[in-house]
Amino acid sequence: MKQYLGIDMGASSFKYGVGSSKGGLLHFGTVRIREKSLEHVKQNILDILEDVKEYPYQGVGLGTPGTIDRKTGKILGVNPNLQFFTDISPAELFPKDFPHTVLYDNDANLMALAESCLEPCRVCYGVTVGSGIGGGLIIEKNIFHGASGFASELGHTIAVLGGEQCNCGLQGCLEAYASVDGIRRQLQKAKSPFAGLDVPGMISRSKSDPLVKRVVADGETYLIRALSNVTTILNPDLIVLGGGAMDLGLYDINKIRKEVFSRISLAHRKDLKIKIARFGNRAGVMGGIILCERA
Amino acid sequence: MKQYLGIDMGASSFKYGVGSSKGGLLHFGTVRIREKSLEHVKQNILDILEDVKEYPYQGVGLGTPGTIDRKTGKILGVNPNLQFFTDISPAELFPKDFPHTVLYDNDANLMALAESCLEPCRVCYGVTVGSGIGGGLIIEKNIFHGASGFASELGHTIAVLGGEQCNCGLQGCLEAYASVDGIRRQLQKAKSPFAGLDVPGMISRSKSDPLVKRVVADGETYLIRALSNVTTILNPDLIVLGGGAMDLGLYDINKIRKEVFSRISLAHRKDLKIKIARFGNRAGVMGGIILCERA
Repeated sequence: MKQYLGIDMGASSFKYGVGSSKGGLLHFGTVRIREKSLEHVKQNILDILEDVKEYPYQGVGLGTPGTIDRKTGKILGVNPNLQFFTDISPAELFPKDFPHTVLYDNDANLMALAESCLEPCRVCYGVTVGSGIGGGLIIEKNIFHGASGFASELGHTIAVLGGEQCNCGLQGCLEAYASVDGIRRQLQKAKSPFAGLDVPGMISRSKSDPLVKRVVADGETYLIRALSNVTTILNPDLIVLGGGAMDLGLYDINKIRKEVFSRISLAHRKDLKIKIARFGNRAGVMGGIILCERA
Repeated sequence: MKQYLGIDMGASSFKYGVGSSKGGLLHFGTVRIREKSLEHVKQNILDILEDVKEYPYQGVGLGTPGTIDRKTGKILGVNPNLQFFTDISPAELFPKDFPHTVLYDNDANLMALAESCLEPCRVCYGVTVGSGIGGGLIIEKNIFHGASGFASELGHTIAVLGGEQCNCGLQGCLEAYASVDGIRRQLQKAKSPFAGLDVPGMISRSKSDPLVKRVVADGETYLIRALSNVTTILNPDLIVLGGGAMDLGLYDINKIRKEVFSRISLAHRKDLKIKIARFGNRAGVMGGIILCERA
């Protein structure tokens, strides 16, 4: 069985693993991005390659944040969490003499790809909720990229017309309300003493503090609306919710399912399942491996 | 050159024509639906077949309102404008001994298909604004149907959470605010003396009556938001706006273009064109013909 190296680049760490979709992961690891510079993340990649050198693999599949221009193969626009990572092809992170092909795609696209392979589905929409909000559309097990590579940017759909400033420069984006960073920024703006909480802290504080409760509930409501609209436009039979904040339970999957179902037509409800991502924090790595298997 | 009969079923009339995408229409006609019953529309079809009998054609492509379940081939759910037209395959409108194949699809899908063939594009989203609001997504010149046939129901995305009751049974749908019927219902609710106006009347009255002005402007704003979100999710390189109300100029295409562009990222703006449908009221007929050509 052919094996591949999957790497998932996040804002604060790389996750990686060697394996195959059928055989699972032989090895899984994490390296921290301690310094947000190109030189440092190139060193991270060397560390990963060193760590997996005993495991045979035939290629690399890399998931990265940011939008990739399919025409140039380069990251377009500045990612506020990884500002140096723009106008570059993610394959350039690897040494010049690296012997394997490096395939890459947006991290949320790869998460959706991995999850879509876990059960029968024709149209799968995957959403990651973490520092930001990402989306990925899988049609018949293939990533849908749109006309130029920028499809599925769910986090930058409009939640509130003329609303909060988003990291991306636009106003009122879903990400500015429903992502972990968005919730923190809202709490900060309202001078809440709880603006610095991590996700478990946010969840527990939302039970006692009315402001935290409201901001988290609003985030959930905007996410529910966005998912309802995605369903009405795309008629998926599977929606998968993942990412760090979903894994930790920031939003309630049962409530999301119930509320989305109440906001879509019978036709759209009929074949739809809404689930938590089963690969958890390994979905991006597995998506990278599947990307290689499909090439 | 092979020719086909294209038929576009609306709430108040059938439009039809014989021709081909390359050669255009040899013949174009309209018959009114005077009575909203299955027997009457079957007679309408007989009248159309009689009218085109001199023109050779190899098959029929029919556009219908409503959502078509791809598994059963039948219309699912009740269309408020054509209440009898449910749980039936549109091909059943034709006589049992009709010698040609009848293909059919949602009318907005066929409009989008026809328009997408007029210029180079990879991802085209077509929108019809009339009594209702329809949408169609064309990927590499193929209609995208979603998992079960209900994709692209733009009119039933949520404009206002918990908002106006829509004909479809849901609340706050875009169609309840931005369609011609939606605008009329809103004016009626506000006891406006102008609730019965036709589209040209609405446009002219919106220049002098503040309530008509506001309701039409709100409809346009919600449409702009929906188009911005469709763009961020699907990354189309072509958006085409058609339907009776757009043809008559209810909404300003230049304003829509400018406002959508201000609400999407640079990446999504880069390759996007937003245009008025060029086939006008013949787009559905031409889409039916193209559906046959592709079969």
